[in-house]
Amino acid sequence: MEDKILLAHGSGGKLYRRLVNEVFLPAFQNPVLAKLEDQANLTVPKGNIAFTTDSYVVNPLFFPGGDIGKLAVCGTVNDLAVGGAKPLYLSVGFIIEEGFSLSSLRDIVNSMKKAAEEAGVEIVTGDTKVVEKGLADGLYINTAGIGVTREGINLSSTNAQPGDLILLSGTIGDHGIAVMAAREGLTVMSPVLSDVAPLNGMISDLIDAAPGVRVMRDPTRGGVATTLNELAAASRVSMKIYETEIPVREEVASVCEIFGFDPLYVANEGKILAVVPKDQADDALRALRQHRYGRNAAIIGEVTAGNPGKVYLETAIGGSRVIDMMAGEQLPRIC
Amino acid sequence: MEDKILLAHGSGGKLYRRLVNEVFLPAFQNPVLAKLEDQANLTVPKGNIAFTTDSYVVNPLFFPGGDIGKLAVCGTVNDLAVGGAKPLYLSVGFIIEEGFSLSSLRDIVNSMKKAAEEAGVEIVTGDTKVVEKGLADGLYINTAGIGVTREGINLSSTNAQPGDLILLSGTIGDHGIAVMAAREGLTVMSPVLSDVAPLNGMISDLIDAAPGVRVMRDPTRGGVATTLNELAAASRVSMKIYETEIPVREEVASVCEIFGFDPLYVANEGKILAVVPKDQADDALRALRQHRYGRNAAIIGEVTAGNPGKVYLETAIGGSRVIDMMAGEQLPRIC
Repeated sequence: MEDKILLAHGSGGKLYRRLVNEVFLPAFQNPVLAKLEDQANLTVPKGNIAFTTDSYVVNPLFFPGGDIGKLAVCGTVNDLAVGGAKPLYLSVGFIIEEGFSLSSLRDIVNSMKKAAEEAGVEIVTGDTKVVEKGLADGLYINTAGIGVTREGINLSSTNAQPGDLILLSGTIGDHGIAVMAAREGLTVMSPVLSDVAPLNGMISDLIDAAPGVRVMRDPTRGGVATTLNELAAASRVSMKIYETEIPVREEVASVCEIFGFDPLYVANEGKILAVVPKDQADDALRALRQHRYGRNAAIIGEVTAGNPGKVYLETAIGGSRVIDMMAGEQLPRIC
Repeated sequence: MEDKILLAHGSGGKLYRRLVNEVFLPAFQNPVLAKLEDQANLTVPKGNIAFTTDSYVVNPLFFPGGDIGKLAVCGTVNDLAVGGAKPLYLSVGFIIEEGFSLSSLRDIVNSMKKAAEEAGVEIVTGDTKVVEKGLADGLYINTAGIGVTREGINLSSTNAQPGDLILLSGTIGDHGIAVMAAREGLTVMSPVLSDVAPLNGMISDLIDAAPGVRVMRDPTRGGVATTLNELAAASRVSMKIYETEIPVREEVASVCEIFGFDPLYVANEGKILAVVPKDQADDALRALRQHRYGRNAAIIGEVTAGNPGKVYLETAIGGSRVIDMMAGEQLPRIC
């Protein structure tokens, strides 16, 4: 097979079939995909389903700790899981630039395969388009996902109540800084690894331990600050978080200081925020910390009454300031 | 609001929220999307579900008879419908080039809204990414779709049997030629309109009239020739089609002749091929012809035994030649 992607690989003709047969099918093998029909026919257990989609345009495609393929699987898995759904099936749409290296494509596809295996999901349907050289910056990936919603839990951004505690599952800013450092060719003593990971296992443990959990979100674009603002607005409450309680890796803090970024606005791809009733917060924290992706989990703040939509940060030196949503664009193309 | 898309529109922050609130929500309004959670929670009727995805990179974005938005809705609706599913829900992922006109985006979104209304589907979840100027060629769209499979029918590319008849729902090549002519700025006396349309209504009528239908496909990329080759290979049968029975508009035939295209390989976005048992073929044809999108439907050939995977064309002058899958790329970026 050619070692580069040609426009004809997106034609629906012979080269397209070879790409499917030699690259995608061996990696994503499952009986549904193998039928190569225009649609996947799936059995879902009784119950309601959850459905989500994200496109991934991260630059560079490979970065310390992951690549666009791992990101495309984990991001969609996590969007289903934070809604309380068990992720089951993914679709994948590739938009590839003419001339893209076939061996890089294989690496990305293998990375998707591994992430899907860890998350316990199957890639059951897909599509590939090829665009001319100069467009698409290598490749873009869209994934959509279907999950089955867990019975008996009620998660919604509108659920946070004064008195609830706010949990964060680990250090912030790792993903955004890892991608930025890779893009800028930044040489640092201890390189920052992206935290990109499938969180459905950890989230399931959290729900088992704290079935009264009100809402979970993964603080991706816009970071913890933007996500908390969205939750505070949707629930018509205010929130107070404590700077000293928010876990940040030293190397992330250093890079942020040098470049003038606030880690509260930097994207994460392997973290969740959870709002939990006070009496279940310890159980929730324990469940998070027992999971490999939640070892640095912490209770970072609380939900408060009054001033709906406002998020306050109690600083290390005892001051208090309002943390707004991200206004512009701090770090483009980190997911 | 700004009149052009900025990188910050893809940031997940304030401008992103405005884009969602001012452009997407008013067009796609439905209670599920309005919740703006990271995932849509849906109720599906009892039964199995169908799931599909396609990315759309058509160039130009607007062409006679449609635009990328209409295409993105209809293409995914049709992929569900040809599998025998009733399309219900769509996701949409936009990848937009920095600087893209917001009024063009509104036009595309409105076109999606109209197509979704005609097809009876809801756009329930979505995502927007923005990439730097020079990439993405305006915009790319991915849609994924969920449908419920109809009970009691069994459609599969492996089902075609010798003796079955092959139906085509109308003229071929309209979409590919319309896009190509728009791209090349071709001035023709009677401009060709794309046939892009949601076919789920017509397909449902066909199934009612001919419940024994073996397989349906929409001959998009690679055209009728490539699709028939796929079906013949999957069912391990041969096929014979009659050149004189295949409907082609005069203006499409003329353009094809000038540019050296074979209409059998040109993409369609509003047509289906159906393989039907002989005794149900007349009923199927009548059902197609009664629908606005099937007025020019015809029985174009038959399934034959021997030489599995081969498709033969009986030419107008009485010869017979093998029609292969498309080998290279005839018309890039037509969908």
